[in-house]
Formats: sequence, structure tokens, C-alpha cells
Amino acid sequence: MPELRHDPIQKRWVIIATERNMRPNDFIIEPETDKATFCPFDEGHEDRTPPEIFAVRDPGSARNGPGWKLRVVSNKFPALKIEGELDRRAVGLYDRMNGVGAHEVIIETTDHDAHMSDLPVEQLKQVLYAYRERLNDLRRDKRFKYVLLFKNHGQAAGASLAHPHTQLIATPVTPLTVAKELQSAKDHFHLKERCLVCDIIAQELSSGERIIKATEQFVAFTPYASRFPFEIFLVPRTHHHDFGQISDYDTHYLAEFLKDVMARLKVGLNDPPYNFLLHTSPNTTTSLHRSWYWNTIQYDWHWHLEIIPRLTRVAGFEWGSGFYINPTPPEQAAEYLRELELT
Amino acid sequence: MPELRHDPIQKRWVIIATERNMRPNDFIIEPETDKATFCPFDEGHEDRTPPEIFAVRDPGSARNGPGWKLRVVSNKFPALKIEGELDRRAVGLYDRMNGVGAHEVIIETTDHDAHMSDLPVEQLKQVLYAYRERLNDLRRDKRFKYVLLFKNHGQAAGASLAHPHTQLIATPVTPLTVAKELQSAKDHFHLKERCLVCDIIAQELSSGERIIKATEQFVAFTPYASRFPFEIFLVPRTHHHDFGQISDYDTHYLAEFLKDVMARLKVGLNDPPYNFLLHTSPNTTTSLHRSWYWNTIQYDWHWHLEIIPRLTRVAGFEWGSGFYINPTPPEQAAEYLRELELT
Repeated sequence: MPELRHDPIQKRWVIIATERNMRPNDFIIEPETDKATFCPFDEGHEDRTPPEIFAVRDPGSARNGPGWKLRVVSNKFPALKIEGELDRRAVGLYDRMNGVGAHEVIIETTDHDAHMSDLPVEQLKQVLYAYRERLNDLRRDKRFKYVLLFKNHGQAAGASLAHPHTQLIATPVTPLTVAKELQSAKDHFHLKERCLVCDIIAQELSSGERIIKATEQFVAFTPYASRFPFEIFLVPRTHHHDFGQISDYDTHYLAEFLKDVMARLKVGLNDPPYNFLLHTSPNTTTSLHRSWYWNTIQYDWHWHLEIIPRLTRVAGFEWGSGFYINPTPPEQAAEYLRELELT
Repeated sequence: MPELRHDPIQKRWVIIATERNMRPNDFIIEPETDKATFCPFDEGHEDRTPPEIFAVRDPGSARNGPGWKLRVVSNKFPALKIEGELDRRAVGLYDRMNGVGAHEVIIETTDHDAHMSDLPVEQLKQVLYAYRERLNDLRRDKRFKYVLLFKNHGQAAGASLAHPHTQLIATPVTPLTVAKELQSAKDHFHLKERCLVCDIIAQELSSGERIIKATEQFVAFTPYASRFPFEIFLVPRTHHHDFGQISDYDTHYLAEFLKDVMARLKVGLNDPPYNFLLHTSPNTTTSLHRSWYWNTIQYDWHWHLEIIPRLTRVAGFEWGSGFYINPTPPEQAAEYLRELELT
């Protein structure tokens, strides 16, 4: 019997379509080969990207030249532009504003072919430091309400370049998906004086059936109402609302943890295309967020990473309904990833 | 300068990314060829589908045999199952119910290779009659709150079979996307005592810049905050909340109108993959919808078709934010489709 499951964070029903049951092997396809001949993110091609905003460099190496371990640059084709005022206004019954924002690219390594799980823990730590650094820096701009950090890996996940990179987009409005999660968390907190995600973590650890990996610091599990096969929710075990305040210690633990989880995805599903998203707290320094309502954010919000392998296609039903049809029960997906032997 | 535009129906911001401007020619690719050797929807293969629920047949032809013009069957791999009770219950802090619903397929023609725009008006009318008939029949089942009618054309749009067909899924909860649209329409009506979609139509007809085609009965335009390049909103010009009550006359006009609009898509963009969705009123006979609040639905809701060409990929930013990045301003898309010479 198929099952409808409700996600308490996104307040969305998902169809777990047992009649269409797809097991891990059904998803294993040949990874795409990188057809590009020239990569602007390779070492030595620094002049082909906008100037660097941040970098981890060998001592003595020059800005915008070789000798780096990690670079952050503006996106050459930005979705939003950094200059200008918002100019909010009505167009009849519609609303518009200028596309003001920031769009940056974190080039994670000089190794063009590396998977996130191939990076040494020390390098992955530098990547996480860069996430924290850029997030906190962009938050200082009072025009921006949110900074979304995300990664597209593989063409089917929307990556136009294969070289390992993460993107940040700072937006002048809080994104809908984040606003919805913030609201659910707030509603739960007002009712119970507990964090919704903390409650979810407790239930997941106690049942265990959807756990992929758990350490003292972090937990990764497949959500009860997973929209997609092998969707992963990765979260700090101890309550914290803001990735921007992660400690150096926790960054180290997260690097180790992430390397392991990403390796499970790569090995278990033959390097599938995936999206990776950070949902951290909004920019609470902007005036609209400084109201009393937002002052509980440190108690009710819990930052997390969502990892979404792109193994199925979203079709008319999903677009028209907001329902998702998932052919792989999350318990089955978690068991497979959890029991994988990584050598 | 990129622009942020707000959609008053879905209450969602869209980024019109002028820096990435993509013109119609950028999207023109070779259509996929149908690799399947055997098609269960072809005439003569009736034994390879579940038994027919409805059909338009030649006089004297036998059920579940050849001699048909159009057939409706259950989906062989249904997302939801018709038998059983909902059995709603909690799983700790989560919620679940049985996947009870209906999943049907309308096989639109015996012509395996036909595009919707290739069908004669008379055949397209039969298709629309079948939509109306199946919608109204499924609504009689009090377990279902909504019937979503949709079409996936082309592999990138999620079609697993190339033979022209439309699907219906009846769900035991009102889908999120529809619920959101119903709420926006209701909020607008409570404030202004006017239909939101009627207001939008009036503004679109008066500006004209996003109109693709308008007749006395129907209007097609690209939404102000289009999420996707060449997205189309098709709507009856006179207010009506329910496609299930469309008259035979209007069905004829809609068949003519739809044939023309779909031909523009096919000719203008070289038969792109697309999804096609009907948003009509929910099943107001179910008890939860019989409250006073829903009694205004005939005044505040306006049925419409959404046609979404699948020309761009949805990536991490969209999944994480609910924002969409559209590289083609809807004014440009509408102008192109409007001015196309159909011979």
C-alpha cells in the first residue's frame, strides 16, 4: 500500500509509492563525463574568473595568480547584482524590485576531478571555513535578508562546470522555502517551548531506522517524508541556530562527518548528481528581522544541511500539486547507506 | 539589471535574470526520439493496459479491443491505490495516512506520434470531454479532496511513454500548490470582492505585452513572474471556478484555442518537453470543504491551465529557496510566441 507522509518542517505531504518500489541498484547509472575542454576554475586560469574575494594561498603567492588551495570569486553570470538600491514598487497589482544581491562561487580545490568526499579532511575544513567566512561577511550588508549556500554536482543537478565548487546567493527577501521552515519551527516552539528539529532528532535517534550515521556532534538521516530517493538531512546534534557561529572544533568534526556521508553517496550510488543546501538562520541584523518575533530564533531554529540526489525526474504532478512521489522508502535508503562498507 | 518579480497567486518571488538573457533560439534543441519499440497505448495492444474505464469507440466495437478514438484506463503503476480507508494516524511527531486515491491515464488518440496540436479540433474536443467526464466522476468519491489533471510530454518533462496521454490523480488531501492558490484567491476576494485572476486578466489585456493569444472566450499569456522561460497561463475570459462545468460550446472554443497555443509551442521551440496542468476547484462535496469559508469558491476561484516548457534545469538554489531564476523575460517570450506565423 502506498503511504502519504507529512513533513513537519515543510508542512508538505509526500507519497511513498511502494508499488513503484525502486531499490538502490535501479538508480545506478554511468556518471556523466565532463565534456568541457577548458575549465576557468583550474589553477593557472585565474584570469578567466572575476577577481578573488577570498582565498587560502601558499605563503608568498600573489592574488589572482596560481598557488592557492581555495578561492572565492564573484559569479561571472550573476543571478543578482551587487550594486544599487532595491526600488520596490507596484506594477498594477504586481510587485517588483531590482535584482540586488550577491552571487559568489567558492572553488573548493585545485583538483578538477575531486568529489567532495575525495578532499582530505584538512581541505574540507578550509571549505567549511570559507562557507562561514563568506556567510558572515555577506550578512554585514543590510540590504540582504538571507544568504543561501548551495552546491550543484553533476549536469542533472544543474552544474554547468564539473570542477568542485559551492555557490552563495544573498537575497533581499527571505526565500519562501526558508520562511516556511522558520514559521514551522516558530509555531512548534510557541506551542511546546522546544526546538522542532531537536524533537525530530530525538525521535530519529530513538527509532534508528532512518539513521545513516550519528556521532557525538552530528547526525545524518533520511527524512520521514523524504521527497526524493536517498535524500539526506544532516544536522548538529546539539541545538544551534546559526552555521555562521560554528566553532573551529565543530568545523573539524563536520569535515570528518561530511566526508564520510558524501563517500556513502558516491560509493553507494556511483557518484550520482546531487544538490546540497545549507539552511541557516536569516540575517537577523536587518531591520525587519529585529522585531521581538525574531528574537526567539536562537531557540527555535536549528541549522541543517540538505543533500538531494537527483535520481528521479520532477514531472507535471509534482509541479501542479507540490506533492512529491518517492519510489524508495526512506528506511530502505537509510539502511543501504548506513550498512555500506567504506574501505 | 536583474529584476525580482512577485507572483500574486503563488505569493512567490522570481528572479528575471537579464544578465543571463536567453533568447528563443538558445532553447531550440533536437527533440528526443522515442526509443521504445513496444507501446501499450497503441491500437491493438488493449490487453497490455488495465481494463478501460471510459472510451470513445466506433459503433459496434468491443470494450478493451480495437476500434476506439480515445481510451481511459487505470495507471498500471499507480502512485495511489483506489481501495481502502485512509487510516490517518500519528507516528511520534509525524503524520501519515494510507495512499488512497485514483490514478488514471487518458490515451488521447490512436496516433502514437501526434503532438497535441496535431489532433483535429474534433478529436481535441473528445479529449476535453474526457477530462470533464473523468474529473466529475472521480469527484463523486467522498474520500478525495482534489483531482489533478496533468500531462507530461517528452522525457525531460517526466514522460515515460511518448504516445499522447494525460493523467489524473485524485488525492485525499488538497495539494499544497492548489491550497496556496485557493488561499491567495480567497484573501483577494475578502479584501476587494473581486476575483484575483479576473483582475490579472484585465491588467494583462490592458497592457498586452505578455499576451500570446486572446479570443472572446479564452486568453493565454506569460505570467508577470514566470518561473520558467515560455511558461503559459491559459484561462477562460469569463469568470468560472470549475472546469467540470464547462459547456459543450466552450469545449469547442477551448479545443480550437488550445490547438493554436500548443502549435505555437511546438513550432516556435521545436517540440520542447513540457508539463501541462489543470487547476480547477477542489471537490467541494467533501465535508471539510462544505464549510462557509469554501462557499465563496464560485466567486473567488478561476480555473486555469498552466503550460510549463522544460527548457531549463531546476538546481540547488531553486530547491533550497523556492525562488526561481528565469533567464527569459516573459514579455520577450510572449512576443515571440504571439508573432509566430502558423501556416
